[in-house]
Amino acid sequence: MILRSAPLALGLALSAIPAAAVAQPVTDAASGTAEQTSLFAAELRDARAFVDGMIGEGVVVPVPKDPGGGYTHEQHKRNYRALQLGGRLYSLTGERKYADYVRDVLLAYAKLYPKLDDHPAKANQHPGRLFWQVLNDAVWLVHAAQGYEAIRDILPQGERRIIDENVFRAAARFLAVDSRATFDRIHNHATWAAAGVGMTGYVLGDQALVDLALRGSDGTGRTGFLRQVDELFSPDGYYAEGPYYQRYALLPFLVFADAIERREPGRRIFERREGVLLKALDTTIQLTYGGCFFPLNDALKDKCLRTDELYEGVAIGYARTKAPGLLSIAQWQGRTVLTAAGQALSMDLADGKARPFPFRTTLLRDGPGGEKGALAVLREGAGFDGSALIAKNTSQGMGHGHFDKLGWQFYDNGNEVVTDYGAARFLNIPAKEGGRYLPENETWAKQTIAHNTLVVDGKSHFGGDPELAERHAPRQLAFVESDRLKLSAAEIDSAYPGVRMQRVLALVRLSDIAEPLVVDVLRSESETAHVYQLPLHFNGHIMRSGFVRTSFTQARPVLGDANGLQHIWIDARGQPKSATDGFLTWLTGDRFYTARWIPQSGATVLIGESGANDPDFNLRREPMVIQQVSAVRSPVFVTVLEPHGRYDGAAERTDESESRVASLSHQRSGQYDLVTVERRDGRKHTLAISWVDDPDRDHTAIIEGRDVVWRGFAALVDNPRENAP
Amino acid sequence: MILRSAPLALGLALSAIPAAAVAQPVTDAASGTAEQTSLFAAELRDARAFVDGMIGEGVVVPVPKDPGGGYTHEQHKRNYRALQLGGRLYSLTGERKYADYVRDVLLAYAKLYPKLDDHPAKANQHPGRLFWQVLNDAVWLVHAAQGYEAIRDILPQGERRIIDENVFRAAARFLAVDSRATFDRIHNHATWAAAGVGMTGYVLGDQALVDLALRGSDGTGRTGFLRQVDELFSPDGYYAEGPYYQRYALLPFLVFADAIERREPGRRIFERREGVLLKALDTTIQLTYGGCFFPLNDALKDKCLRTDELYEGVAIGYARTKAPGLLSIAQWQGRTVLTAAGQALSMDLADGKARPFPFRTTLLRDGPGGEKGALAVLREGAGFDGSALIAKNTSQGMGHGHFDKLGWQFYDNGNEVVTDYGAARFLNIPAKEGGRYLPENETWAKQTIAHNTLVVDGKSHFGGDPELAERHAPRQLAFVESDRLKLSAAEIDSAYPGVRMQRVLALVRLSDIAEPLVVDVLRSESETAHVYQLPLHFNGHIMRSGFVRTSFTQARPVLGDANGLQHIWIDARGQPKSATDGFLTWLTGDRFYTARWIPQSGATVLIGESGANDPDFNLRREPMVIQQVSAVRSPVFVTVLEPHGRYDGAAERTDESESRVASLSHQRSGQYDLVTVERRDGRKHTLAISWVDDPDRDHTAIIEGRDVVWRGFAALVDNPRENAP
Repeated sequence: MILRSAPLALGLALSAIPAAAVAQPVTDAASGTAEQTSLFAAELRDARAFVDGMIGEGVVVPVPKDPGGGYTHEQHKRNYRALQLGGRLYSLTGERKYADYVRDVLLAYAKLYPKLDDHPAKANQHPGRLFWQVLNDAVWLVHAAQGYEAIRDILPQGERRIIDENVFRAAARFLAVDSRATFDRIHNHATWAAAGVGMTGYVLGDQALVDLALRGSDGTGRTGFLRQVDELFSPDGYYAEGPYYQRYALLPFLVFADAIERREPGRRIFERREGVLLKALDTTIQLTYGGCFFPLNDALKDKCLRTDELYEGVAIGYARTKAPGLLSIAQWQGRTVLTAAGQALSMDLADGKARPFPFRTTLLRDGPGGEKGALAVLREGAGFDGSALIAKNTSQGMGHGHFDKLGWQFYDNGNEVVTDYGAARFLNIPAKEGGRYLPENETWAKQTIAHNTLVVDGKSHFGGDPELAERHAPRQLAFVESDRLKLSAAEIDSAYPGVRMQRVLALVRLSDIAEPLVVDVLRSESETAHVYQLPLHFNGHIMRSGFVRTSFTQARPVLGDANGLQHIWIDARGQPKSATDGFLTWLTGDRFYTARWIPQSGATVLIGESGANDPDFNLRREPMVIQQVSAVRSPVFVTVLEPHGRYDGAAERTDESESRVASLSHQRSGQYDLVTVERRDGRKHTLAISWVDDPDRDHTAIIEGRDVVWRGFAALVDNPRENAP
Repeated sequence: MILRSAPLALGLALSAIPAAAVAQPVTDAASGTAEQTSLFAAELRDARAFVDGMIGEGVVVPVPKDPGGGYTHEQHKRNYRALQLGGRLYSLTGERKYADYVRDVLLAYAKLYPKLDDHPAKANQHPGRLFWQVLNDAVWLVHAAQGYEAIRDILPQGERRIIDENVFRAAARFLAVDSRATFDRIHNHATWAAAGVGMTGYVLGDQALVDLALRGSDGTGRTGFLRQVDELFSPDGYYAEGPYYQRYALLPFLVFADAIERREPGRRIFERREGVLLKALDTTIQLTYGGCFFPLNDALKDKCLRTDELYEGVAIGYARTKAPGLLSIAQWQGRTVLTAAGQALSMDLADGKARPFPFRTTLLRDGPGGEKGALAVLREGAGFDGSALIAKNTSQGMGHGHFDKLGWQFYDNGNEVVTDYGAARFLNIPAKEGGRYLPENETWAKQTIAHNTLVVDGKSHFGGDPELAERHAPRQLAFVESDRLKLSAAEIDSAYPGVRMQRVLALVRLSDIAEPLVVDVLRSESETAHVYQLPLHFNGHIMRSGFVRTSFTQARPVLGDANGLQHIWIDARGQPKSATDGFLTWLTGDRFYTARWIPQSGATVLIGESGANDPDFNLRREPMVIQQVSAVRSPVFVTVLEPHGRYDGAAERTDESESRVASLSHQRSGQYDLVTVERRDGRKHTLAISWVDDPDRDHTAIIEGRDVVWRGFAALVDNPRENAP
């Protein structure tokens, strides 16, 4: 092979290597304009520093021993990063030391790998060889294959054969054959395995391995990568497990698809299902606020767009779409990848081509055919710090799913306001169950009471049975997007036997009020009486309540003994009589929030906090308010969340710390629900809900003695004084 | 008077006004280079927007009614800001509308002011007229006088007399005569009053008012501004109330001093007491971490250098000193003031003259003569995110003082780690006791148990009596600053009758460990037995403890019934046997911290949380660990706090989440205390304390059978293996 050296603005020798040997070749034309200060230049510097450091340490390939977070686990992770980056550095610079290092590491793995059996720290039924779970072994292979691809051509045949056989074929065999139970799933773990096996196939020139990866063990296509593309994303690019795993799953999808596109462009992989893979990238970014993922299902809240998966994903996506919004994401990330795609992105960013990413109000259907409910994202204002209401009407999302049908979250002013706990886990921290999911993930984080949705008779949805839950999804009833009203409505009748729940969640803009209000109408219907509990988990410091509280100041009772209730301390209890005193105001960041509701007759409101029955300090302690009512058949819960005012500690100024809402009322008129917000200044606004999802159908109801007409599923109606010309 | 117009890069007409009429005249030379993007240009834009908005609203001078945070309170605050900025805008631009507006507002005050009596929302013995407390009236006058100064010369004599008499003389009389009890204090409230009265004197050309301000009501100088300069700051520029009030007090000191310097330069006010006022500015900035003030005594934690007081202070200080570190502070603030000083600062900043502010390890003596203890600030690493240990060996600091003699705080890696609660107050939030100090400020925030210092027999220092506390201060025994060891030692024998407490707090750097460790040696001596409780309040999520815990998972007991103990829930209890299991590890930000201690014989350790007996949700809920021992005379508490490792959620990496310390030992050898840190790698280091503050005196002790010699109060001694060549 021939190395061509060319001067480069970076002061490095750039080498063009035969295309077949390079993951994504860097063109000379492109490299000429790279700058010292660009994202790409920084990546090059950082990669050099990291790999040079690894070279300085010598080849260290320890016998696997530790679980996540332990020494051998972390060393094998560093190694796969060094293999990938070493290969890329060799491709970019032509410096032989990088190729030699990649080779030496792979030869060390070639000695170790054949001797390995199940990992000694295995903790589930899917043990790995190098790592405690097979998933990490697949991730290792995806990275190692990229490194090997860059150097394989220059190796003498003997070394090549040793590495081919003892590392890559062995690892591919382990993933595809020995771990077939994982390999043949329709699940992100299987996607990583398919990507590892398929990319190995491309590197070794072994089409049989590629086919295995694409069409599954039995070659029928009932499993394998293509089936995963078809089934794991909805038509809107939503991934059933939720954003946290969508982010994680995205990398093998895009990296393997990128390899397929280069090796077998005839497959038109990026056009499959109307471009679902690139839709999935866009959707992944739509599923963020302030750059971080909505923590639906099992999710760690510190996971944001600043992750390796999204550096790769944004670069690959930008190379395919040239969408200028992706450049602003790259800018926020402050990172890119050491590939031609990363370099091109970096140059366009430096050329000022970035535009704000188009965060939008969107309904993302769930399920392969879009038939398993949906996630509704309602936004007002700027994407990074405006308002975002998320209505979770999706399917269960497999083993990492939480039991929170029709739940919701709300962000505003840069903060989480109505919160989801996410997962109970300290990733890779040995003292916390080896960094795995904590027991409290099952006993608290997954349970219905830990979410903002209805708990019936103290139990979780589907009795907490994930297999039952997997068989049912909510039905999205409507999705409205207009100037002053954005609304999602959904229902489910299978979460509790004999109970039908319908929920409208809306973001409404009232005249002369800058911040949108959330209106929440939750109807529950049953033939029999139940105990209902509706929690609202929030982030903030309580300022005041409208109702008289009985406080448990010396001994706080625990709410219950199972299904998550055992983790809730009760701070106080009250019995508001109407929406005039049925409210709680808290402060989040520099803004106040008032949650106001129409109390059920005889209902109690509880102010509580998570953290009871947590001897190992595994839970965060977070506040909540719970509406609770017994012996009722079909309650309608109406809640309004109002952002208001400003607290400026530096300037010692406080504005509008009191709610501007005086009261709420709810009226059932035939099949219609009419929720009226009465403001302190006397103005009134009614959210009129027809429950009929026909945008051309007119409806009439009498509000305060006056005929009101609206069209479609729901509308925001101002009272006459407002409507006067 | 003559208005000279000159073209300005800002596109504004700049007017030079006779010097006597302008607070700080803007020179033509300076203004020529101002840029659109400079701090000053931004201030000009913002001030125009604000004052133009106020002009648009018309003159609104309501009859006083509301307490802090309420409408009339906030409107009068907006008015004084508009008066000050309106005056400055008129001086800068010569635009008559600003002068007219200032005049109209003052004429409105001239109508209102003579009718006022005590404020209807008065809540203490120092009521104001326009505001609920006289302090705010003084602040109003300081600002209004600056606005009036800019326009008084152009007013017709009739208007001038009305405003002179009905506003300024009346307000000065109210402050100096009617509120003489406040005016003649040696206290920051009196400084504001003196500044208001004195600046009024300059504006009206009334030297008698100036003298009253400078020398107090009786003209003897036993009170008044000069005496305040002499008494309220220590020789090191430390203000007895602490950083939060130092920041607040600084403004009238500097603004009035600036006026004195301009009007009566012969007084050499900035040279008084070896330049104590400029030292006070430097000290104010030294008393910050991450830009925010150490929350000693009554302090709100959201108070940072980004406040009006410091914008003025930094500009005045820079004009006098040209210290380039102040420019980097202005840069961090992103703000300056609309004066010649602000403009000059803005230009030098734009010219790249900024240098990092020299945060340093420093001992700040307290008391007018430096005789009332000291605040020790020990730093390692960068000022904004390195390590900072604060040892509070200061005097009580008057009514806002907390009962925490020999307490400490620790910052590291950009976070508060060992915390001080600060004040229990939500400033200006009406729902929280009108924004005043909350009852829990007395029952919790001021109490000793809420701090990181020793509680004897369940009581607070000085029995919680502020007057008794005011009469005693700790004695600073030593202050050591060397490469590997920074140390403060102090003692007090008056906090509890018959109990002498001595405490060494040190920041030590051990070989091959990047982060400095804190070593805390607290000796308590008494003739009689006591119950001792030593709390450590921290910020973070508990990862693990070394000892077996008994957890209160269903009902948490409350620690006590008075002196702050009633606000502590107990989560768990344990009885570690040695420093091997006597530790607690938590995670703060992305770094782990392990507090490790040598348990007293028979001692219990409690893990607790604030928030019990808090029916109004006035307290933040924060964790703590408490060493508790009964029936002991003279315990020695030895604690080591070790920052270690890194948690990277984005990269899913965890390093060194386990402490690198294996154990601790303490040896009393004659009068010496020897604390040895044994590392897991076998290395040992001893902090040898002679308690003799003579840097030239040698000491010898036997450590592990070996004679060890050190010089001075204390030294860090490595074990032989480390010392071997």
